[in-house]
Amino acid sequence: MSSSKSSSSKPNPGHVPAAVVNRLTLYLRELQHLLGDGEQTTSSNQLGQRLGFTDAQVRKDLAHFGHFGHPGIGYRCEELVQAIRKILGTDREWRVALVGVGNLGRALLGYRGFSRQGFRLIAAFDADQSKAGKKIEGVEIYTMEQLTEVLTAERIELGLIAVPATEAQEVADQLVTAGVGGIVNFAPVTLTVPAGISKVGVDLARELEQVTFAVANRLRAEE
Amino acid sequence: MSSSKSSSSKPNPGHVPAAVVNRLTLYLRELQHLLGDGEQTTSSNQLGQRLGFTDAQVRKDLAHFGHFGHPGIGYRCEELVQAIRKILGTDREWRVALVGVGNLGRALLGYRGFSRQGFRLIAAFDADQSKAGKKIEGVEIYTMEQLTEVLTAERIELGLIAVPATEAQEVADQLVTAGVGGIVNFAPVTLTVPAGISKVGVDLARELEQVTFAVANRLRAEE
Repeated sequence: MSSSKSSSSKPNPGHVPAAVVNRLTLYLRELQHLLGDGEQTTSSNQLGQRLGFTDAQVRKDLAHFGHFGHPGIGYRCEELVQAIRKILGTDREWRVALVGVGNLGRALLGYRGFSRQGFRLIAAFDADQSKAGKKIEGVEIYTMEQLTEVLTAERIELGLIAVPATEAQEVADQLVTAGVGGIVNFAPVTLTVPAGISKVGVDLARELEQVTFAVANRLRAEE
Repeated sequence: MSSSKSSSSKPNPGHVPAAVVNRLTLYLRELQHLLGDGEQTTSSNQLGQRLGFTDAQVRKDLAHFGHFGHPGIGYRCEELVQAIRKILGTDREWRVALVGVGNLGRALLGYRGFSRQGFRLIAAFDADQSKAGKKIEGVEIYTMEQLTEVLTAERIELGLIAVPATEAQEVADQLVTAGVGGIVNFAPVTLTVPAGISKVGVDLARELEQVTFAVANRLRAEE
């Protein structure tokens, strides 16, 4: 079920391809769904089938980080959830700030998926002074001038950028100066950050392109 | 620069791994940025470097679909953009409907990245009757009861789901019944759709998890 080649070398998470990390987050979510459905154990086969991967792919991905299967049982869901959260670094709470309280920013403040995975939105910032002092979804809004002060005082580790594209790089620079270690950028622009700062860009149109690829190929096949 | 193993077998886009399609959308965006910066040509090396992939990875991914490089030149940006859009099916306009006009829905209606990539938001739907008849970002809001009628009349091909998790499956069923071929789901729940319908789930917390993985590993390495 979950055998993997034994290896005497210690797994090195520092050199794991981004695609593997991406799949780890999918495995985690699927395991959480299984637990929610009352399932105690699963297999690389079941996990793979639910996500459209081969069982070999699942085993190979997990083998980067150690041995998680039990002979004759497979994976224990709860145990594997804990292991993956530890690998992803979400076995503890992360303190997060949001910059940009427009429609997308408001949606992010109300997004329940964050707190469920250990992300705590502590503070939000907006260039519009009239928003300052208000609370949205329990999160206080500050002015941009307060950013460095609040981020330091609140020990913010991660920043979400939901400002217009033209302002995103300046905001990223300010977040880095204020000491955040990672940035998730929702503005449709590629950011430059110093080495040692992690960033992920979220481009919503890319999700649609993956759907059109499948739809277009099906239409082509039917022609 | 962009050599790829010649092969007599015809590329088969129907069996391309999802990870390759995912990277294609990244190559497309990077090529569009290069064009925006006035660059006419690029190389697998340059493309890879900008995205953190090896040049071999870039060449291997593109080789699934044909030969795109020119000896001594590399890739012509405009030509490769057109080729990838054709592969992804975005060389034409797609007619899109949105269900759920809350904060996230409003953000999606205002998201400029969609029209830039050929996605045209035609209609939006919400269970709150008081929103019906209004226009947001030029898109008319309809009641849920009008969904099938409007989707058929407007020949909608793709649906975006931005409703609460508890309602997402029912909305997906309605979209499928109304004839959409693909769904992008922003609700934090896994949807079941019939074979032949494409779907992608957008889980915003997964983006953060990829950042924490990198940050946590850096912290561990520093200990």
